[in-house]
Amino acid sequence: MQTPSFDPGLTQRYDGPLRRVINPDGSFNVSRQGSTWRDSNPYLHMVSTSWPRFFAWVLLSYVATNCIFALVYFLLGPGTLRGGMDGDPASARFLQCFFFSSQTLTTVGFGAISPATPAANTIAALEALFGLLGFAVATGLLFGRVSRPSARIGFSKQALISPYQDGISLQFRVVNRRANTLIEPSATLMLMTVDRSNGDSRREFKLLTLERPSIMVFALSWTIVHPIDANSPLYGKTAADLEALQAEFIVLMKAWDETFAQTVHQRFSYRYSELVWGARFTPAFVIDSAGNLELDVGKISDHVTEKISDHVTENAPALPSAQPG
Amino acid sequence: MQTPSFDPGLTQRYDGPLRRVINPDGSFNVSRQGSTWRDSNPYLHMVSTSWPRFFAWVLLSYVATNCIFALVYFLLGPGTLRGGMDGDPASARFLQCFFFSSQTLTTVGFGAISPATPAANTIAALEALFGLLGFAVATGLLFGRVSRPSARIGFSKQALISPYQDGISLQFRVVNRRANTLIEPSATLMLMTVDRSNGDSRREFKLLTLERPSIMVFALSWTIVHPIDANSPLYGKTAADLEALQAEFIVLMKAWDETFAQTVHQRFSYRYSELVWGARFTPAFVIDSAGNLELDVGKISDHVTEKISDHVTENAPALPSAQPG
Amino acid sequence: MQTPSFDPGLTQRYDGPLRRVINPDGSFNVSRQGSTWRDSNPYLHMVSTSWPRFFAWVLLSYVATNCIFALVYFLLGPGTLRGGMDGDPASARFLQCFFFSSQTLTTVGFGAISPATPAANTIAALEALFGLLGFAVATGLLFGRVSRPSARIGFSKQALISPYQDGISLQFRVVNRRANTLIEPSATLMLMTVDRSNGDSRREFKLLTLERPSIMVFALSWTIVHPIDANSPLYGKTAADLEALQAEFIVLMKAWDETFAQTVHQRFSYRYSELVWGARFTPAFVIDSAGNLELDVGKISDHVTEKISDHVTENAPALPSAQPG
Amino acid sequence: MQTPSFDPGLTQRYDGPLRRVINPDGSFNVSRQGSTWRDSNPYLHMVSTSWPRFFAWVLLSYVATNCIFALVYFLLGPGTLRGGMDGDPASARFLQCFFFSSQTLTTVGFGAISPATPAANTIAALEALFGLLGFAVATGLLFGRVSRPSARIGFSKQALISPYQDGISLQFRVVNRRANTLIEPSATLMLMTVDRSNGDSRREFKLLTLERPSIMVFALSWTIVHPIDANSPLYGKTAADLEALQAEFIVLMKAWDETFAQTVHQRFSYRYSELVWGARFTPAFVIDSAGNLELDVGKISDHVTEKISDHVTENAPALPSAQPG
Repeated sequence: MQTPSFDPGLTQRYDGPLRRVINPDGSFNVSRQGSTWRDSNPYLHMVSTSWPRFFAWVLLSYVATNCIFALVYFLLGPGTLRGGMDGDPASARFLQCFFFSSQTLTTVGFGAISPATPAANTIAALEALFGLLGFAVATGLLFGRVSRPSARIGFSKQALISPYQDGISLQFRVVNRRANTLIEPSATLMLMTVDRSNGDSRREFKLLTLERPSIMVFALSWTIVHPIDANSPLYGKTAADLEALQAEFIVLMKAWDETFAQTVHQRFSYRYSELVWGARFTPAFVIDSAGNLELDVGKISDHVTEKISDHVTENAPALPSAQPG
Repeated sequence: MQTPSFDPGLTQRYDGPLRRVINPDGSFNVSRQGSTWRDSNPYLHMVSTSWPRFFAWVLLSYVATNCIFALVYFLLGPGTLRGGMDGDPASARFLQCFFFSSQTLTTVGFGAISPATPAANTIAALEALFGLLGFAVATGLLFGRVSRPSARIGFSKQALISPYQDGISLQFRVVNRRANTLIEPSATLMLMTVDRSNGDSRREFKLLTLERPSIMVFALSWTIVHPIDANSPLYGKTAADLEALQAEFIVLMKAWDETFAQTVHQRFSYRYSELVWGARFTPAFVIDSAGNLELDVGKISDHVTEKISDHVTENAPALPSAQPG
Repeated sequence: MQTPSFDPGLTQRYDGPLRRVINPDGSFNVSRQGSTWRDSNPYLHMVSTSWPRFFAWVLLSYVATNCIFALVYFLLGPGTLRGGMDGDPASARFLQCFFFSSQTLTTVGFGAISPATPAANTIAALEALFGLLGFAVATGLLFGRVSRPSARIGFSKQALISPYQDGISLQFRVVNRRANTLIEPSATLMLMTVDRSNGDSRREFKLLTLERPSIMVFALSWTIVHPIDANSPLYGKTAADLEALQAEFIVLMKAWDETFAQTVHQRFSYRYSELVWGARFTPAFVIDSAGNLELDVGKISDHVTEKISDHVTENAPALPSAQPG
Repeated sequence: MQTPSFDPGLTQRYDGPLRRVINPDGSFNVSRQGSTWRDSNPYLHMVSTSWPRFFAWVLLSYVATNCIFALVYFLLGPGTLRGGMDGDPASARFLQCFFFSSQTLTTVGFGAISPATPAANTIAALEALFGLLGFAVATGLLFGRVSRPSARIGFSKQALISPYQDGISLQFRVVNRRANTLIEPSATLMLMTVDRSNGDSRREFKLLTLERPSIMVFALSWTIVHPIDANSPLYGKTAADLEALQAEFIVLMKAWDETFAQTVHQRFSYRYSELVWGARFTPAFVIDSAGNLELDVGKISDHVTEKISDHVTENAPALPSAQPG
């Protein structure tokens, strides 16, 4: 019996030109419109935006806030502030107000310029309060960005069609590129194909059974194996078949990150063109002279050719390396 | 066999005038009394209250704290502080104390006014400590509010009675109105009806089976489907039946928010008057010229009329659009 | 068949004088010795300690740190600091050093006293760094205490032996004393008894089956029901039996708190002496004139006497209110 | 039937000299190479590094940042700053710039040295902003280190082969060395052996069934028991057998920490040489005169010899204490 098709949240009715579903960075190939400003969450935006944009936002807000407060001090007239740079022209006075504002907002308060009137003192008291609150948000966002949980799981560049027991399997290999410990990593593998039998294209999604959907610790590399048996939607398919079906293998991984103390997720996908038919991964670790296991994350994609025809003559006669379709 | 009724936490014994159970914003139609001050949690209150109230609280606390410390400096007598605004009257001296207090509490410390006696220095040292601790709470609360996890799932304005396989179904559609990724969203659908057969009203709650209670990623829209088969409490019911039963469909959704790194929840409900009998959702996304999926969150409620009588003649003969009860 | 006994983590071998297992505040009646300083975690201690102790620690650390830095400035000799209170005696000079230290540590930096030598400037630069780091820990701890997730679930003062269907049941009622929303609350109920049949006392723990171990939302009160059927260890027991067994009913509750965005836990226990035989809870909410549900958390324990003898004559003949053992 | 072997994430193909898999501190005996700078996460590194290194980093960054800003002020020429230490030589002027920078970066801002030109004021405004952002990261990291969830579960020094019902069992004992409450602790026990039957060494991993894989609360000690019955891979094995197999028992524990409000994990392992054949744990708690349970975490490893030969003559005839292999 074959796995039934279903919609994992990526629609089946897609009938336009065909693009990859999941981009190499794990994002989805979906844009959106019709959202209103009520749908935007400033926190989510500031945490997700790029670093240059984030710092540009912070700097811009800092300068703008200082300009506004400087304008208020300026409009209170001469004599509002005491000390600082002397100078008659209005521009010098505005600069003085601006620098006083920056010293108040950041609570650095040198005192070389100081408020001289009750009005100036009142504004300064409010500005210091505003500065403390505003910087709490800015620095909270900054630290939220720095400490945001993320996994950095490395995926082998190709997925392999490899010998497996008496038959064959689809295999790919993953590694935790970081030195921290990931606990109970688990993987879900989906096959997306495009069915054009009825004239219009229609996406189909099928879950592929894994030999082991979860392991206990992610200390070394992990070879994820989908056995291509009679229940597999890949059973009897050739490379040409998978190209015709525009096959994309979607991988969803999750694990518990011990350092972040959070669950982390990562996505990846292999398209039909990223399969190697008839190959086997070579070990990605060596034993050094002291008997220590040394994992080499750069070898995660290393594999050697291995004939699969003998293994699969009976089970999967149409396999391309044996009998190109 | 019909689903058994149960109490999901919203009581069955309710026999007063009938109101919606879940408000449009997801809150419950329940007020409470008899709580004592021991039951209030200041953190929960300050995180949940409205923005204007939050800022009013912060400003009020700031002014009040400064007044208290200002009074202490004031009562220490003339000569306690050095510099600042000169002026004989007590009011000017109190103002000086107030501004000095604000500069100490916020740690801005211009120094134009400074403590001149051991007593003033001691109070100032304590005030700076108090300011650091107090602002830690205020700014922590502010950032807690800003970064509080929340979902913004959009629900179709109506739920539809739609064709489904050989019969009919109840369908509604949801969309993630934000651009962030929600993982493994899941939904629970309950039917609340009011049974008046025994003279007094009695609420009944029944879980409605979903075709798919969870999907893998929430990247597009998700149509949630309850097949109205012989096991469904809706089987054979007409629109008039549901009105008589004061039917309310309660939706509880949850998902993992990748940016907040938190589980988020959202609630919604449809009343009998928000059902459309005989309709089907139209796609809420388009394919642009470059082959990209473009989701239009504004189209989430779009549907077209579709006759359901042919499909359901045998299965659900009493359906109103076919044979209005 | 009766539920088997097991050890939930509270030992069966306890054979000393008998005490309550769970105190009214949810803590366990266990003290510990043999822990070394390596086992203490300063964060856990500072987050768990009482508020007066926490503030005493903060104040003490503040004063002690200032004393140490003041001593350093003092030992650098006269002329190290400029300004501030003039005065010959060493005590006045130490005070000046102390106040300068406090102004540096809190970064308030009035400037009326300022470092006058490279050595003083270097120490001040280090003290400001130390102050920023130290206050980060102090204010983080403070906010961690304020924002620490906690539930405030109210339990009925007694558990009732109530009629239930054709037989009887053990019932108690819980309410969320706060106004925030708890999602998917669940309860576990254990019976602890003491078996003295073999001469020495031996604790036995048995799980009691609940009619509904979890509900969807905790918006109102929740009556938790253990049906006393033939599978229940309470079946056929009298009040005198339970006293002889020193019965204690241990309740473990957990729920998802939407405002804290955290799972919260709470424990409670009823001893044999806190059971009411033959009673029924009365509703803890009213419907106001506008048709709103109004929950009265003060009525959570309200119950009325209800004869249970008729119900249980055959099922549980030995029940004390029917036939006192 | 024996438990099947599998790879829990620690590779089976290991064929070098044999080392412990899990170190006493819970880390894995794996090093890694081939990671690029893109794989490093500064947050993870700074949270995981040792305390001396962390503080060295902070101090170094502080001094380096001040040097850079001091250089900028210095290069702006004499007259840039006002006040502070007077002195002609460039070194004195640089020192003045350095101390001014430190007072600006930490926002202490004494004001004895203050910016005198628009350029100096502008740099100072930027430095105060940089200081606030930079210290947000440094103090966030510091507090993240302090508040990082961790368990401190104590394990008995040896695992015992103990009598159990009619046969024998592998037992070890754990205790929460801290006074906080751990909820729902659970344990997983794996046996790692080395199979050399085919000439090359090959690791095998087998899950060992536990009498009780999880308990409700971790208030006392917990004795974790693997019954050595016919399904156990240990059935019929002698101490010599286990040494030949280089047996290592890997323990993975997890629990919910109520104070951290987080899930905590801990790992441990026993090698064949850390087994005691024929022993039984003695209680690790006493009852004091007031009837309180007093847990002594120092007694967690205490055990007494207990003959197991009689129990196991038939079931496990090859056990060494009965018939040394």
